[in-house]
Amino acid sequence: MEKKRIIGLMTGTSLDAVDIAICDFYNNDNNLQFNLLNYKEYLFSSDYKTFIKKIIDENSFIKDISQLNFYLSELFCDCILDFCENFNINLNSIDAISIHGQTVWHNPSKEIFLDRQISSTLQIASISAISSKLSKKVIGDFRSADIMLGGEGAPLIPIFDYYFLKSSTENIISLNIGGISNITYLPKNCNKNEIIAFDCGPGNVLIDSYLQEFTDFSFDRDGRIAAKGEIIESLSRDLKKIEFIYNSPPKSTGRELFNLKLIKKLIGTNRYSIEDVIATLTDFTAYSISYNINNFVDENSKIIVSGGGRKNKSILKRINYYLPNSSILLIDELGINGDAKEAIFIAFLGYLNILKIPGNISKITGALKEVVLGISADNF
Amino acid sequence: MEKKRIIGLMTGTSLDAVDIAICDFYNNDNNLQFNLLNYKEYLFSSDYKTFIKKIIDENSFIKDISQLNFYLSELFCDCILDFCENFNINLNSIDAISIHGQTVWHNPSKEIFLDRQISSTLQIASISAISSKLSKKVIGDFRSADIMLGGEGAPLIPIFDYYFLKSSTENIISLNIGGISNITYLPKNCNKNEIIAFDCGPGNVLIDSYLQEFTDFSFDRDGRIAAKGEIIESLSRDLKKIEFIYNSPPKSTGRELFNLKLIKKLIGTNRYSIEDVIATLTDFTAYSISYNINNFVDENSKIIVSGGGRKNKSILKRINYYLPNSSILLIDELGINGDAKEAIFIAFLGYLNILKIPGNISKITGALKEVVLGISADNF
Repeated sequence: MEKKRIIGLMTGTSLDAVDIAICDFYNNDNNLQFNLLNYKEYLFSSDYKTFIKKIIDENSFIKDISQLNFYLSELFCDCILDFCENFNINLNSIDAISIHGQTVWHNPSKEIFLDRQISSTLQIASISAISSKLSKKVIGDFRSADIMLGGEGAPLIPIFDYYFLKSSTENIISLNIGGISNITYLPKNCNKNEIIAFDCGPGNVLIDSYLQEFTDFSFDRDGRIAAKGEIIESLSRDLKKIEFIYNSPPKSTGRELFNLKLIKKLIGTNRYSIEDVIATLTDFTAYSISYNINNFVDENSKIIVSGGGRKNKSILKRINYYLPNSSILLIDELGINGDAKEAIFIAFLGYLNILKIPGNISKITGALKEVVLGISADNF
Repeated sequence: MEKKRIIGLMTGTSLDAVDIAICDFYNNDNNLQFNLLNYKEYLFSSDYKTFIKKIIDENSFIKDISQLNFYLSELFCDCILDFCENFNINLNSIDAISIHGQTVWHNPSKEIFLDRQISSTLQIASISAISSKLSKKVIGDFRSADIMLGGEGAPLIPIFDYYFLKSSTENIISLNIGGISNITYLPKNCNKNEIIAFDCGPGNVLIDSYLQEFTDFSFDRDGRIAAKGEIIESLSRDLKKIEFIYNSPPKSTGRELFNLKLIKKLIGTNRYSIEDVIATLTDFTAYSISYNINNFVDENSKIIVSGGGRKNKSILKRINYYLPNSSILLIDELGINGDAKEAIFIAFLGYLNILKIPGNISKITGALKEVVLGISADNF
C-alpha cells in the first residue's frame, strides 16, 4: 500500500486567499484513503486583489497575462515554502504539488471564434515554472480536458465525494454551502453513473452581500445575527417565488441570479431591521436547500455538510426544521477538516493524475468521456 | 534499445505555417539517434494570420486569449489527424506528440509587476486539451522552466546540435540561416559547457524584406536575383559599419535592428537596380556570418548549414569567398532533412522530456541550472 504525500493549493474565484493542505494518500486495492497532515490559509492583501481583478476584468495586453502567469508562480512558490517551513516539512518528503490555479476565464458555452465554435477555460500560474523553481513534480490544469471534450469543466468535487463520502449502508447527500449551495447525491453503494450533482440555490451569497452592503460584518458568524431576527413574511413569500429553486436538475446558478440587486428589488421601499432581513434570507437559503433535497433526491439520506456555511447554526437549524426526518452532520464529524476540504480536494486531483484514474464524471460535467485530468511537470 | 515514435509540431513566430515531423528515436547508452519518417508543412490562410496577429498585437480581453488557446488546440489536432491520414500513420503507433505552441509573449528581461521583478514567456494551445482530444500523451511548454530560472528561454536548438552534429574528429559549426543567422560551435569531442552559441547578424531578413517591399518575390529563390547583380561598393561599406557584427559573443539580435528601414536609410536617394541591391545585401549577409566565424570560433571547422537560407546559392558562394579554407555542407548532406529540422527538434525536446534529460544548456541560456523541459498530459 504505497503512500503518496501531496501538497494541494487552492485559490478561489473571489481572489481572497490561497488554501494549502498536505495529505498522505493510500491506494488499497482501489479503495483510496487520505490523511490530512496540515492545513493553512494565506490571505491576499487588498492591493493584490485590486491589481489582479483589474487585469482579469479589463482589457489587458497579452503581456499582462503572461507576466501575471509568472507572478502567481512566484507567489505560490513562496506560499508553499512558507507552509513547509511553518510545519517543518522537508520538501524532499513530498511526492508532488497539485495546484488548481487562478481561474481567469471559464465559459463552457461554445461561441464563434474565427471559423470554429469554441469554449474554453483558463487557470493560471505556470506548472512548469513552479516545478523548476521548487525542483518538484507539479500537477495542475484540471479543467481543460473536460472542456475540450464538450463538458462544463465543473463540478469536479463529486469524484471526491464518491471516493470518500459514499456509504455501503445508506444514501448520502454531500451538501456544500459556499456562496452558492450545491449537493452531490450518492445512493447507497452507487457507481459513478448513479451520482446526481446540482446547484440548489443561494448558499451564503445573499446573507453576505446584504451584510457587506449595510453593516461592518462580512458574514453572519455562527448565524448569530439571523438568530436575533424574525422572518418577514412578505419578503419570504417573494423570495420563494424564484423559479430556479423549483427547476429539475441538472441545473447550475451563480451571482448573476442571486445577488444584492435581487434583495434590494424585493425589499423596495420597505424598512426592515438588519436582523429580520438576515433571518429571512437565512430561512430562504435553508428552504431552497431543503426543497431540492426533498423533491429531487432522497430526503432520508444522511446529509453531510461542508463549506463555510456549515458554521452558520441558523441555516442548519432551518434545514432541520424543513427536513425533520433527515440526519444532518458536519463533514468535520467524519474526521475531514471542513475548512481544508477544497485544498485536500486539489491534492486528491493530483493523486488521481498520478494513479491515472479519471477525475471527471462525464454524466455530471457533460463531457464525451471520462479521462485523467491535469498536466504535470518534472522540471528538475 | 527501445524505440519512441514521436510527432513534433512547430509554429514559427511569423505565424505562416505549422510544420509537422514524425520521427523514431533510439537511446543507445545515452547515444541518442533519430530517424525521420515523414514531414509536411501546413500553410495558414492570411485570414487566420490577420486574426491571430490582431489578438496578439492589440489590447485583448482575457477571453480572447483563452478562446485562442482552445482554437489553436483544435487547429493543431486537425493538422495532426490530417498528417496521420496523409501518411497512413496509425495514432496507436505513436508514443507522444510534442508541441512548441504559438509564442504570444517572450521577454526574458525582468520588469516590475506589482511588488516583484518578473520575466515571462507564453506559448499557447492547451497541452491538456490536445491530449484529451487525441487520447495521446502530449508534451509542450519548453521555455517556461528556463525563464523561471533566470534564463533567456532561448536558444534551445544547441542541445539538438550537441546530440546530432558534434564530432569526435573535427570542430563543427552548425550555421542556421533563418531570418537572423546564428551559429552553434561544437569543438571536437566537446561537453555541453564548451558549446558556444550566438547570433551573427542578418540571415534572410534583409533580402526578403527588400524583395517583399519592391517586387512580387517574397524571397530570392536559389539566390538567382543576387547572381544577376553587382555589389554596390558604397552601400556595402555602410552596411559593414554596423557595430553588432563586430561585437564579441554572447550576443543576440532581431528585426529591431535588421529591417527594411535600415536599408532604406542607407540607400537614401540613390537609385540602384533591384539585382545590385540584393547582390549587396547577400554579400553583407555572408560577410557577417564569415566575420563571426573567422573571429570568434575556429574557421577551420566543418560548417553545417541549415535554415531556409541554405538554399540561397549566392549566400553560400560568398561565404566560400570569405572563408576559402572552410568546408561547408548542407545539413541535408548528413541525412537530416533541412526543411524538417525545426519540427524534428520539437519532437526531440519531447523525447528528452520522456527520458528526463535536461534540454537547456545553462551556459547558453543563462539559467541557474539545467532542467528537464516541458509539461506533459496523459488525459485519456
